[in-house]
Amino acid sequence: MSDRPETPLLDTVQYPDDIRKLDRNQLPQLAEELRQEVISAVSVTGGHLGAGLGVVELTVAIHYVFDTPNDKLIWDVGHQAYPHKIVTGRRDRIRTLRQGGGLSGFTKRSESDYDPFGAAHSSTSISAALGFAIANKLSDSPGKAIAVIGDGAMSAGMAYEAMNNAAAAGNRLVVILNDNDMSIAPPVGSLRNSLARLVSSGKYLAPRRLAQKLARAMPEPLHVAARRMEEYARGLVTGGTLFDELGFYYVGPVDGHDVRALVEVLENVRDAPEGPMLVHVVTKKGKGYGPAESAADKYHGVVKFDVVSGVQAKAAPGAPSYTGVFAKALIGEAERDDKIVAITAAMPSGTGLDKFEEKFPDRTFDVGIAEQHAVTFAAGLAAQGYRPFCAIYSTFLQRAYDQVVHDVAIQNLPVRFAMDRAGLVGADGATHAGSFDLAYLCTLPNFVVMAAADEAELVHMVHTMALHDSGPSAVRYPRGEGRGIPMPEIPERLAIGKGRIVKQGNKVAILSLGTRLAEAEKAAEQLEAKGLSTTVADLRFAKPLDEELIRKLLTTHEVAVTVEEASIGGLGAHVLTLASDEGLVDAGLKIRTMRLPDTFQDHDKPEKQYDEAGLNAPHIVETVLKALRVNSAGVEEVRA
Amino acid sequence: MSDRPETPLLDTVQYPDDIRKLDRNQLPQLAEELRQEVISAVSVTGGHLGAGLGVVELTVAIHYVFDTPNDKLIWDVGHQAYPHKIVTGRRDRIRTLRQGGGLSGFTKRSESDYDPFGAAHSSTSISAALGFAIANKLSDSPGKAIAVIGDGAMSAGMAYEAMNNAAAAGNRLVVILNDNDMSIAPPVGSLRNSLARLVSSGKYLAPRRLAQKLARAMPEPLHVAARRMEEYARGLVTGGTLFDELGFYYVGPVDGHDVRALVEVLENVRDAPEGPMLVHVVTKKGKGYGPAESAADKYHGVVKFDVVSGVQAKAAPGAPSYTGVFAKALIGEAERDDKIVAITAAMPSGTGLDKFEEKFPDRTFDVGIAEQHAVTFAAGLAAQGYRPFCAIYSTFLQRAYDQVVHDVAIQNLPVRFAMDRAGLVGADGATHAGSFDLAYLCTLPNFVVMAAADEAELVHMVHTMALHDSGPSAVRYPRGEGRGIPMPEIPERLAIGKGRIVKQGNKVAILSLGTRLAEAEKAAEQLEAKGLSTTVADLRFAKPLDEELIRKLLTTHEVAVTVEEASIGGLGAHVLTLASDEGLVDAGLKIRTMRLPDTFQDHDKPEKQYDEAGLNAPHIVETVLKALRVNSAGVEEVRA
Repeated sequence: MSDRPETPLLDTVQYPDDIRKLDRNQLPQLAEELRQEVISAVSVTGGHLGAGLGVVELTVAIHYVFDTPNDKLIWDVGHQAYPHKIVTGRRDRIRTLRQGGGLSGFTKRSESDYDPFGAAHSSTSISAALGFAIANKLSDSPGKAIAVIGDGAMSAGMAYEAMNNAAAAGNRLVVILNDNDMSIAPPVGSLRNSLARLVSSGKYLAPRRLAQKLARAMPEPLHVAARRMEEYARGLVTGGTLFDELGFYYVGPVDGHDVRALVEVLENVRDAPEGPMLVHVVTKKGKGYGPAESAADKYHGVVKFDVVSGVQAKAAPGAPSYTGVFAKALIGEAERDDKIVAITAAMPSGTGLDKFEEKFPDRTFDVGIAEQHAVTFAAGLAAQGYRPFCAIYSTFLQRAYDQVVHDVAIQNLPVRFAMDRAGLVGADGATHAGSFDLAYLCTLPNFVVMAAADEAELVHMVHTMALHDSGPSAVRYPRGEGRGIPMPEIPERLAIGKGRIVKQGNKVAILSLGTRLAEAEKAAEQLEAKGLSTTVADLRFAKPLDEELIRKLLTTHEVAVTVEEASIGGLGAHVLTLASDEGLVDAGLKIRTMRLPDTFQDHDKPEKQYDEAGLNAPHIVETVLKALRVNSAGVEEVRA
Repeated sequence: MSDRPETPLLDTVQYPDDIRKLDRNQLPQLAEELRQEVISAVSVTGGHLGAGLGVVELTVAIHYVFDTPNDKLIWDVGHQAYPHKIVTGRRDRIRTLRQGGGLSGFTKRSESDYDPFGAAHSSTSISAALGFAIANKLSDSPGKAIAVIGDGAMSAGMAYEAMNNAAAAGNRLVVILNDNDMSIAPPVGSLRNSLARLVSSGKYLAPRRLAQKLARAMPEPLHVAARRMEEYARGLVTGGTLFDELGFYYVGPVDGHDVRALVEVLENVRDAPEGPMLVHVVTKKGKGYGPAESAADKYHGVVKFDVVSGVQAKAAPGAPSYTGVFAKALIGEAERDDKIVAITAAMPSGTGLDKFEEKFPDRTFDVGIAEQHAVTFAAGLAAQGYRPFCAIYSTFLQRAYDQVVHDVAIQNLPVRFAMDRAGLVGADGATHAGSFDLAYLCTLPNFVVMAAADEAELVHMVHTMALHDSGPSAVRYPRGEGRGIPMPEIPERLAIGKGRIVKQGNKVAILSLGTRLAEAEKAAEQLEAKGLSTTVADLRFAKPLDEELIRKLLTTHEVAVTVEEASIGGLGAHVLTLASDEGLVDAGLKIRTMRLPDTFQDHDKPEKQYDEAGLNAPHIVETVLKALRVNSAGVEEVRA
C-alpha cells in the first residue's frame, strides 16, 4: 500500500456522477491522479498499459460530458478501459485485473452497467454503438452511443461497413477516433496516409455549418497540427476526408491530452443537432509515463514492473515459446524455398513474423487488422504459385472464416495457416481463447489440420506444410512455452494423416492431439502404476484422421480416450464418427472424448483453466477408471 | 437451334486471342452479337442475366486490351461472367450453364485458365487480384491483375481492407469499378453517396499527372456525368474521393457501353507507369434487352424465358417457399411485438424481408453487403432490449463468424439468426451450399440451434425464437418449397431442447433434424414393410440436444440413425458425443450418422444432389439394413 500514489481528488470519485460534480478546472488534476493510479495498478497486475495511459483525459472528459451509463460508451477492443474501470465503480478491484476471479482486461457486460458492450477483438465498436443508437431512435429515447476506436482498428473492414451505415443514426451516434499513430504495430496501409493528409491538410474544421461553432473550442489542435505537420506531410492535400465521404460530420483534430479542450469539444458534439459525428482525437500511447512513452510498443502489454525504473519483472528463462519456434522454423523453410511468403494481420510480434520480416522484408506482408483480406490475398498468392503462410491467432481466424471456406477450401488452394494461441490463453480470457478451430476447420473438405504436441513437432509440421502443395493446411499450437525438449537438426516431413505411437500398452489407449500429450503421458504413468497397461498415441492430424491407427487402437484396447484442447465438434467428434461409420461401437466400445467444456471460460492462470476444463492428467486417469468402472485403487467395481 | 441469333463475327472468336485479331472498329458488332448470344443462352438455361448484359462491352474491351490469361482477370462474384465464358473457349457449353455436369454459374478455376480465381460470394476480387499482382512483383513477372467489382460489392468491408493494402501492388493492379447503380437491391449506405458525389463533382479526371493523358480518351464520360447529374446531386461536392484517399489513381467515369472508349481508356491504364488504378465504369444492368433493362431487379436471376416477350417460364404453383413462410411468420411476430426488428445484408428479396419491410419500414435494416456489421449491429440492438432477427443465408453467415462468436455468443445476447438456404442449394453449387452451419454454431456455448422439418415447424420456431430472450438462437431451413402441409393458425412455442416423436416403433430409430424428415418417414414405411418396426423422431434442436429423448431412443432400439443435411461435425457428431459421454456405446450400440459427404458438391438439380449425398429414403433404409446386417429382404445375415 505504501507504493500507492496520493490521489485525493480521485478518492472522491467512485462513479462518473462524482466526476460531474467537479469543476472543470479540477479535471486536469483528476486525470493526473487517474494516470498515476493506472500505472500503480498495472505495475502490480501486468496488462495493457500504454493504451490506457493514452486515454486518461479522454476517459475523464467523456464521463464528464456524457450521461453514462444512460449514454452508452463503447471502447473498441477494450484494453484501454482500465482508467474507465477505475472511475466506474471498480477501483477497489483494479489490482485484480486479469487475475483469476478478478476484473477482465477488457470491457465486459457482466462486470458493470458502464460496459454496455464487451469487446476484445478489434473494430466492433461502431457497429455495436449503431445498434444502441438505432434502438434509442426506434424507442424515441434520447440516449447517445459513443464508440471510441483507435486508428489501427479503423483498418478492419468491419469498421468501414459500420461507418457506411452510420448515417441512419443521426446525432445519436458519436465516433471518437483515438489516433495514437500506433496501434499494436505501426499502422499500415493507405488509411494511415489518409489520416495523415487529413491532419496535415489544415482543414481541421468540418466543412459544414457546425464547424465554426466548434472551432471556437479548439485552440490546441492548431498547435498539434503544426507540431505533427512534418512527420505527417507525406502526400498531397486532397482536401477531402474519408469520413466526410462516409457521411460523418468530421470534427478535429483535438489534443487528446488537453482535458478542458476535450470537454468543450465533446459538449458541442453532444449538443449538436447534426450527426453522426466523428471526433478526431490525437493521443500519445503511454502518455505521462516515461518508460512507456519512449517505448510504446513494448508497453502495449506488460508484466509486473517497477514503477520508478520501468523495469519489467523477467520470467525465469524457460523453453522457447511456440511463437518463437514457429518463426524460426518458417525462416528455415524460407531460406530453402523462395516461394514461401508470410502474412500477418497487424500482429507481427505476436506471431513471430517480426523475426521473419528481418530476414525477408520483401516476403512479409502485414496487411493491418484485416484478416479477411489476409486470407484471400494469400489465396491469390497461392493461385500464382507461391506458398503463403498466414500466421493468424486461432481466435482471429474466425474473422476470415468465409474466406477460408470460399476462397481457400472450395478452390483447394495450398494456403498454410499457422494458428497461434490455439486452446486456452490464460489472462486474456474467453474472447481470445482459440477453442473452435478444430470444429470449424475439420468440417471443411480438402483441409489438412494438424496440432503440434511439442515444439519439435511444430518444426516438423511447418516443414510438412511447406511441402504440402495439394491443398490447404493448418497447424495449431498454444500460447506459451514448449516442453524444453531437444530440437531437431533437420525437420522431418510427416506423412499426411498419420499419427504416431508414443508409448505402447494394451488395455487403455489415450488418443491425444496437441500439447495435452504431456498430460496424457503423465496419466499413462499413473495408470500403469495401477496395473493398467496404457498406449499413448499422438494423432498429429485432426484431419485427415489416421483411420488405420485409430481403428487398431479402438479394437485392441479395452478403453479409448481422446484428449484435445478444443471445443466439442473437434477431434473427439470425428473419431466417434469414424468409429460409428465403421460399426466399431456395434459390439461395445468404451470410448470417451475429453475436450474443452461447453462454456466460455473466464481468464485465469493457464493451469487453473486446464483444471477447470478437466484436461489434466488426473482427469484423464479418472475418465479412464470411470469408463473401466474400476475404483482408484485399480479394483474393478461390480457393475450396477 | 432455329432460335439462335446470327453471330457471324462471334463465330470467329473462340478465345481472346481471336478478339485481339479484330480491328477495334469491329468490336461494337462483336459486343452486340455476344449480347444476343448471352440472351439466347440464358433464355434456355435460366441464371443471372442482367449482370452479364451490363458488362458485355467491358468483357470485350478487357480481353482486347489485356493479355489474358497471362494477365489475371478476376470477376467479383462471377455471376456476370457469362459473356466472358463465351469468349474464353466455353461457348460450346454455354447452354449447359448451371445444369448438372455443365458450366458453373460463377467463375471457377477448374473450368478454365481464364478463370484464375473462382468466386460466388461477393467482394473477394481485389484481395485475390492483389495476391496475383504481388506474386508477379515478387517474381519480377510483368503480368497484371484486373479485378472487376460492382458498386454493391464495394460496401463489404473486405473490399475496403483490400483497397487499403493495394498501394503495394503498384501498376500491376487494376480495379474496375462496375458502377451499375444497382446491385441485387438498390445499394445502401454512404458509399452510394460517395460514388454519387464523385460522379457529380465534375472532377472525373484523376488529380494526378496521369489525368491529362487519360482525359483525351474520354469524351463520353462528360455526357454520362451530365446525364446523371440530376439523379446524383444529393450532397456537397467535397472535392475528394474515397479511392484517392485509399491510394488509387482514379480514372473515370467511363461509359461502360462504349467499347471503343473503354478500349482507349484501358490501353492507357495498361501502359501507365503509376498504380494501382481504379477505373470507374458506368454500366446499365440488363443493357440491351428491353425486359431486363426495364426491370433490372427481376432479371437479376431468371428462369427460362421467351426471348421475344421476356416472359419467364412459370413454375407450377406449389407449396409456399420457406423464405415466404419465414417472412410471413416474422411479420406475425412483429405485429404482436414492437421490439422485433429485422436485418438483412443486401438480400431483402432473397430472405423475404422485402415483405417485412413493406409492413415495418422503420424496423427493417438493409445494411448492404456487410454481414459482419449486420451481426454486431444486431447484438447492439439486442443489448438495448430489441429482438433482432438477422436473416442471412447459411453460407453468408460464414462472413460474420467471429461476430457470432465474439459479440453474440460470448455475451449471450439474444440475437436471432434465420439461416435460409441451409444445406444443398441446387444450381448455385458448392459456394452457396449452407453445409457448415451446424458444425460452426453447435460448437459455441450458449447457442440454441434449430432446424425446421417443414414449413409449419418453421412458423413455430420463429415464434420460439421471438420469445427466447435468454441467449442467441438460430433456425436453419432450406432453399425451395415446403411440403404443402396445413399451416398453423396460431404458432406454438416449442420447449427449448425438446424434440418430438413423429412415429413410434421399437426396433429402428431414425433421429432426423430438418427437412430430411420427409425422407425419414418414407424410409420408415419401407422398413416397416420389411417387418422392421421404426420410430421416427424430429429432434428439432441440434443444440441443446434433447438428451432425454436421445438416451431413450438409443437404449430402446436395436439401431439408431441420425439424418441431417449438414456436414460432419453437426447433429450426428453431437449425438455420438452424448452417447459416448454417457457410456451408451460401452455395451454395444448400433448407431450411424448420415450427413453430407466430405466433398464440395457441384451444382445440379437438388434431387440429384441428395442422391449423390446419399440422403434419400433408400439410403436411410440401406444404412439401417447394413447396420442390422440383414439383407434387403429383411432376413438377418450370419455375422462374419
